[in-house]
Amino acid sequence: MVIRHTDDSHWQSVSVLNYKEEGHHFSRITRQVLYDGCPELPCQLRYFEIAVGGHSSLEHHEHVHLVFIVRGEGDVLVGNEVQRVSEKDLVTIPGNTWHQFQADRGVPLGFLCLVNVDRDRPSLPTEEDLESLRRDPRVAAFIKS
Amino acid sequence: MVIRHTDDSHWQSVSVLNYKEEGHHFSRITRQVLYDGCPELPCQLRYFEIAVGGHSSLEHHEHVHLVFIVRGEGDVLVGNEVQRVSEKDLVTIPGNTWHQFQADRGVPLGFLCLVNVDRDRPSLPTEEDLESLRRDPRVAAFIKS
Repeated sequence: MVIRHTDDSHWQSVSVLNYKEEGHHFSRITRQVLYDGCPELPCQLRYFEIAVGGHSSLEHHEHVHLVFIVRGEGDVLVGNEVQRVSEKDLVTIPGNTWHQFQADRGVPLGFLCLVNVDRDRPSLPTEEDLESLRRDPRVAAFIKS
Repeated sequence: MVIRHTDDSHWQSVSVLNYKEEGHHFSRITRQVLYDGCPELPCQLRYFEIAVGGHSSLEHHEHVHLVFIVRGEGDVLVGNEVQRVSEKDLVTIPGNTWHQFQADRGVPLGFLCLVNVDRDRPSLPTEEDLESLRRDPRVAAFIKS
């Protein structure tokens, strides 16, 4: 089966969804489910796109993310490192690691994100977590919550 | 961890490998392993690139392929259908389904291919399989073995 790419940010018959059902811990980001798993390959492949100035949640969880940048550029926090990412870079986000994507370079940031179908829910930072994260000035300057 | 894309077909510190160890059932195709799996996400993400005029094996296996076209265009046989594919199209190849990729449109064809780490080995067609596949004239005109 072929799911055709139709323009920069869309695929045939794939709906553009809310990033998450609710919350104010993210901004200007959408989600599309390109592959929803099958018993023989129980992964889900999502495409997220962050508009200029937006960001994903600052979160952590047990499950691992495998991310492939498809469009534009931006920056990502993984653990306590902020790194610039651009098209065709691959990012591995280990389990239990704080992470956040930001489209902070004047262009949208679009990326594929692969996860197990069976996975835990993300945790958002507590005030204590934020205090701890902000001890690193580079992290403090980057994160949005 | 970020694996940086360095040019059209390469990533930092990722080796370009033979497509398969041996055989004459493929042509002008290379393999790069971008992600080799971990217990929490036991998949392997490979990048294959077929130079102009080349092709992958005509094969089938129980495991499922999830393919994302990254560069150029070409055609793919899935089952008994030949379809044109180009950048950012997604192709699902179900288990036990004959398939072959060809860079037959004057440009290279580069694609990501996701599989389970734990998977069966591909089977190549027997003379009987080829005879059966060739009963469909569109398939007969396409396949290379």
